[in-house]
Amino acid sequence: MNNDANAMHTLTIDLGKRSYPIMIGSDLISNADTFKPFINGKVMVVTNDTIAPLYLDKILAALHQHEPASVVLPDGESHKQLQTLDAIYAALLERRFDRGCTLLALGGGVIGDMTGFAAASYQRGVNFIQVPTTLLAQVDSSVGGKTGVNHALGKNMIGAFHQPVAVVADMSTLQSLSDRELKAGLAEVIKHGFILDGQFFGWLETNMSALLARDEKAIAYAVKRSCEIKAEIVIADEHEHGVRALLNFGHTFGHAIEAAMGYGNWLHGEAISAGMVMALNMSKRMGKITEHDQKRGIALLAAAGLPIQPPTSIDAETFLDYMGRDKKVTSGQMRLVLLEKIGQAFVTDANIDQLMNTLNAEYPPA
Amino acid sequence: MNNDANAMHTLTIDLGKRSYPIMIGSDLISNADTFKPFINGKVMVVTNDTIAPLYLDKILAALHQHEPASVVLPDGESHKQLQTLDAIYAALLERRFDRGCTLLALGGGVIGDMTGFAAASYQRGVNFIQVPTTLLAQVDSSVGGKTGVNHALGKNMIGAFHQPVAVVADMSTLQSLSDRELKAGLAEVIKHGFILDGQFFGWLETNMSALLARDEKAIAYAVKRSCEIKAEIVIADEHEHGVRALLNFGHTFGHAIEAAMGYGNWLHGEAISAGMVMALNMSKRMGKITEHDQKRGIALLAAAGLPIQPPTSIDAETFLDYMGRDKKVTSGQMRLVLLEKIGQAFVTDANIDQLMNTLNAEYPPA
Repeated sequence: MNNDANAMHTLTIDLGKRSYPIMIGSDLISNADTFKPFINGKVMVVTNDTIAPLYLDKILAALHQHEPASVVLPDGESHKQLQTLDAIYAALLERRFDRGCTLLALGGGVIGDMTGFAAASYQRGVNFIQVPTTLLAQVDSSVGGKTGVNHALGKNMIGAFHQPVAVVADMSTLQSLSDRELKAGLAEVIKHGFILDGQFFGWLETNMSALLARDEKAIAYAVKRSCEIKAEIVIADEHEHGVRALLNFGHTFGHAIEAAMGYGNWLHGEAISAGMVMALNMSKRMGKITEHDQKRGIALLAAAGLPIQPPTSIDAETFLDYMGRDKKVTSGQMRLVLLEKIGQAFVTDANIDQLMNTLNAEYPPA
Repeated sequence: MNNDANAMHTLTIDLGKRSYPIMIGSDLISNADTFKPFINGKVMVVTNDTIAPLYLDKILAALHQHEPASVVLPDGESHKQLQTLDAIYAALLERRFDRGCTLLALGGGVIGDMTGFAAASYQRGVNFIQVPTTLLAQVDSSVGGKTGVNHALGKNMIGAFHQPVAVVADMSTLQSLSDRELKAGLAEVIKHGFILDGQFFGWLETNMSALLARDEKAIAYAVKRSCEIKAEIVIADEHEHGVRALLNFGHTFGHAIEAAMGYGNWLHGEAISAGMVMALNMSKRMGKITEHDQKRGIALLAAAGLPIQPPTSIDAETFLDYMGRDKKVTSGQMRLVLLEKIGQAFVTDANIDQLMNTLNAEYPPA
């Protein structure tokens, strides 16, 4: 357990003029000093009806001197749409928030993505602070500046790149996460090991039980290392034209699972876990990773309590159809992220025969 | 009249990596070579049901080799909203447009603003070509990168900065404009003279009848000079933190008129014309411009057939209320753009007494 509740890591995401800190620690959101340096004008806290009863009063108290307002949205991926954004804009306009204001996202990835896009688009861009309250959001949305909403015809199809001025990853907020959400967050943590850091992958194999037991020190390290790995990639490629594609390991398959099952039925991390198993399978087929590494990969995902097979209800044709709608498909060609070995990913044009074999394979492999 | 129909001016808007040309000439949209260098991937032409019968076939023919698709939206400012954007996204997703695609806006300011914002936000940003078919759009939306939609509670409250890769201002498309729209476009042309170029203001006084007679050579010059003036200001201040505010001369008053009268009842240029008369009045009250310059200003707007008084139905209190919602109001302070003299604008905090006197004044002044 964490013996020093106030211990804090601060990472700086170096994007020149748009650089910002990620603060990782415990009991950060109840401290006025956490936010003070980053607030401009009026503050609107955007959260949802699951998170509001847990942390809204606490954060409003910490923001007291800024006379914060708040808007509480319905919880769930199904509300990540233009219509819900409209409610954020209305809250801002009713209270006469001008372009010198600050939006603060208090919640998981859905709240972060929507609030970030509202901040990107309200009066063509206002200040944005992110307080991710799920492990997934802490390791995934903290870095990269991606914001947006879903369209009925595709996930995350509408959005903008908009960097926050600060991210506050408070370990205390993870104690209220469901086991299912904690595990879903671990999927992205494990992904970071897969694609760029074999040593971190080994650390995860050793520390999986501490992570599942919510040891704040272990989780803080995993969040820090994940954000570092993601930052290394994102800084090299802020607008996703090149190496940033590596972060999509497991995602082309995973997005198809999410979409085919109906958003919200599989958590993002769960779909990505099954998607990574498929990507491991295809990497093995292409003569890249060894069978041993494939097994290690599947074993770690299984140890995290994550799905290691896609839903049997999705046949190969349905998969292909949904994969064709994924925005990672550039100008008609399907690109996939596969592994050379654990800790090293690469991008390739999909070989259609091997892809079909992967889609038709038995999961988990015998 | 224009003796050389193919004469073309090309201005380059110098924004470093995001520099783009504005081509000004006649019969440009029926020429495949106009567009070829700027098209990426699939092309979607976005237009409305007024413009489509006039120019859509022509432009689709010119784009033939790119296999263009098109989406026709209902015409009018009342459709400049999130819901209409959704129709653009749906058209793109149904046809599997990926992030390597190009959106082409064929229409006036509403089409340009919406298509630009769709291009800014579809898959977090795609290629955008603008073909403004109204004088207002040619002189106003061609430069500045502003895109967006209205909210029920305020105009242009949702949007992004997104630069086009090219702007094609085809004089031929102006022949189909109504007189009312032509005049509304002249309001922004005149504004550019007011704020930065007394000499151009004089040229407008001399050439107003040629402009109203739709002399393509005269209009092409007015478009070119307007775009140059706007570009000079915008390049100095791309994200609207400083001198760009000068472009809002007449707009804080004008936006209040548009909103109070219900969007679409007064054309933007008409509201801005009355707004400029109010700003001239206040400039005179503040001891800035002379009575002679105030009269010259009003006379040129009147010669262009534009309104020189606000609607009598809007009282001072209503004005103030709507002005408070304008996004140019930074962090609670109301800033206004006034004139030192014709050809020189400045920004100032509103003096509330002088503002009330301006709102309560008789228009046109005796």
